[in-house]
Amino acid sequence: MGVSLHHIVIDSRDLPAQARFWCQVLDWKVLSSREREIVIGSDVDAPVGICLMPVDDPKTVKNRVHLDLTPGPDGRDAEVERLLSLGARRVDVGQTGAESWTVLADPEGNEFCVIRPKRTLVG
Amino acid sequence: MGVSLHHIVIDSRDLPAQARFWCQVLDWKVLSSREREIVIGSDVDAPVGICLMPVDDPKTVKNRVHLDLTPGPDGRDAEVERLLSLGARRVDVGQTGAESWTVLADPEGNEFCVIRPKRTLVG
Repeated sequence: MGVSLHHIVIDSRDLPAQARFWCQVLDWKVLSSREREIVIGSDVDAPVGICLMPVDDPKTVKNRVHLDLTPGPDGRDAEVERLLSLGARRVDVGQTGAESWTVLADPEGNEFCVIRPKRTLVG
Repeated sequence: MGVSLHHIVIDSRDLPAQARFWCQVLDWKVLSSREREIVIGSDVDAPVGICLMPVDDPKTVKNRVHLDLTPGPDGRDAEVERLLSLGARRVDVGQTGAESWTVLADPEGNEFCVIRPKRTLVG
């Protein structure tokens, strides 16, 4: 095995606020916190976590890399409402409204999608 | 459980080429392939995969979301050489050279880092 996926890094302006938001979204916890790096994940042995790192520059264009989240048994609409209540907002990235996903953004504008409930990875 | 992480979506101009590159990087395989979506992953039951979706617009700024990869037993230098031979290139995002990570980009310019060998997620 050569390399494996470890962290998804999100450039952030307010690391603690972003960590709080994403922990609430994913039901994750802070695994390590330093001045220039906060790592969150489901637990320390999880294969993939999110690492928040500081940047000064504001977001200017739609991100070319984003996360797709899959809702649990409560379904997509209930989850979208929960995420909006946590500080997400709906954004327009040119979607028609006929898509099977809902486009939201985190408090710093990073787009993410809530997709259909998962069956398998290829569902 | 509300939502869970499902896919990392990478906006791409050449989906098959991007799928080929990332499968070689991660030793993953194509799980589904449609005209407007190629999904890759380690296997269909893997919790997180990468989904390549088409965009027309070229990349203009440093991505605000990127992947950190952790090398296996061959170590970082050998892995960086392997990734360069697959079509990655070294990029300058303002790093000083003293960092513990190496910054590369995929064939479409999406930055990613190869970090120290993993011990735990918080290593």
